Amino acid sequence: MDFKKYLNKKCVLVDKALDKLMPVKEEYPSIINQAMRYSVFAGGKRVRPVLVIMAAEALGFKAERVMPTACAMELIHTYSLIHDDLPCMDDDDYRRGKLTNHKVFGENMAVLGGDGLLTFAFELIAKNMEIKGVNPSTVVKALKIIADGAGTHGMVGGQVVDIISENKKLSEPVLQYIHTHKTGALIRASILSGAVLCNADDKKYKALRIYGEHIGLIFQIVDDILNVTGDAKKLGKAVGSDAKRKKMTYPSLFGLKQSREEVELLSEKAKAAVKPFGKKAETMLALVDFLKNRER
Amino acid sequence: MDFKKYLNKKCVLVDKALDKLMPVKEEYPSIINQAMRYSVFAGGKRVRPVLVIMAAEALGFKAERVMPTACAMELIHTYSLIHDDLPCMDDDDYRRGKLTNHKVFGENMAVLGGDGLLTFAFELIAKNMEIKGVNPSTVVKALKIIADGAGTHGMVGGQVVDIISENKKLSEPVLQYIHTHKTGALIRASILSGAVLCNADDKKYKALRIYGEHIGLIFQIVDDILNVTGDAKKLGKAVGSDAKRKKMTYPSLFGLKQSREEVELLSEKAKAAVKPFGKKAETMLALVDFLKNRER
Repeated sequence: MDFKKYLNKKCVLVDKALDKLMPVKEEYPSIINQAMRYSVFAGGKRVRPVLVIMAAEALGFKAERVMPTACAMELIHTYSLIHDDLPCMDDDDYRRGKLTNHKVFGENMAVLGGDGLLTFAFELIAKNMEIKGVNPSTVVKALKIIADGAGTHGMVGGQVVDIISENKKLSEPVLQYIHTHKTGALIRASILSGAVLCNADDKKYKALRIYGEHIGLIFQIVDDILNVTGDAKKLGKAVGSDAKRKKMTYPSLFGLKQSREEVELLSEKAKAAVKPFGKKAETMLALVDFLKNRER
Repeated sequence: MDFKKYLNKKCVLVDKALDKLMPVKEEYPSIINQAMRYSVFAGGKRVRPVLVIMAAEALGFKAERVMPTACAMELIHTYSLIHDDLPCMDDDDYRRGKLTNHKVFGENMAVLGGDGLLTFAFELIAKNMEIKGVNPSTVVKALKIIADGAGTHGMVGGQVVDIISENKKLSEPVLQYIHTHKTGALIRASILSGAVLCNADDKKYKALRIYGEHIGLIFQIVDDILNVTGDAKKLGKAVGSDAKRKKMTYPSLFGLKQSREEVELLSEKAKAAVKPFGKKAETMLALVDFLKNRER
């Protein structure tokens, strides 16, 4: 299969849905809609929405079944980037090669734009009830999974530990905590929300959970590796920033070689988890290689 | 009826539930739980949770039926205060007589603490499904109502317009927008989420909606009046801050006398809306007077 083509097709679908679902720029007060759209359409890879869709497809459903929730995951991811870039956080001027939100719209609009995106994400989850065949109780389950993955037990918790760990020598468990929470929790929640909305049984749910946990880790470790070895132009952001901030990362703790070996090992495990889905999970297998070999 | 006693009783219930539902301070990473709890337990009046409960009671249900959602409304309110107090927003050092969140925990933890509270609020809404007798589809409806009231179509939208209107001469429609959105939208959502979780029929839902809209306006106009005439000690914050910031408020646009008359008029209308509920709505009638006559 041509995975890049598949991915592009799904990205177009997701972008179209995001554009349709989000408030238009002209809507009063215009500035907040401009600010939110600026970051949502700033060249994200749409990994999280595609994961929601892949889980649906693995269970025999089409993308439409989970599209509002898929879009919600991208909004939550985008809000986290906007807040993360704020001067009082990572203080970044560029993201994906474009000025960060607060550089364009001011800090106050960046705070509110992030708040607006996070809140609107939950409205979209509710909107998934309007899709024919979706059971309301599965929407509530997806809501619980996503809120748990995005909040202090998940992504926000990871960001907190990331911040309080700067300039400190970290133990392996703390690094694992950051990795499994900061990026991993939302990736896991993407897969699992797709699974519950498509009525996955216990066995399939568990298989998808294992897959989600492993690719979350792969994603984060590769991110760390790219921050050491990556090409700033391709990444759209400075490399070496982790080292400059004395951030503890996988490569800084275990070295590049062992980090790459870990990625290989996790990839095998992720693939094994979704093997029972057969042909329906072939995009999930391809995604593992895509994440492993990505350059940005 | 002794309304103050009623209110105190409900506040104790809400505080107990919040304490039980929120992550404990000791949970890793402790600082974020400390930050969230600091602002949640900083002396709020619990108006929004009590409104959720009042709607339930008007429909013949007990507080327990809607408690997780009631707590969620307080968390959303608290997050908005934390972000509103940030240096890049209103830049306030004190709130309810205590140091603001970012003054105690730093700006980064205040941003993340707000994000954590907003996210956890939605987890609590999902948790309302665990209450016996609650229909999952009503939880999804409540979710939609609350996200709409809290986001750019509601509270966040109101904050945006409030910010872009500073130091500008405002028209009456813009002032109305700020009033109906910044505080009103969440108050309305509190009443309405309680209503749907207790299966209100169309007629009762409409009556509660009218009540909610009117007390939202009363709340905001009285807030504006207190910022002119209030006692800083009782309020726990500086008075005259709106005038200093050249913020357009109800009193600055219409004068104090007309503002007070408007509050009277709205009070009558709010009371009329819930009259058909009879004795079950007597706390709702008392609340109108309480909001009207409050000194903080």
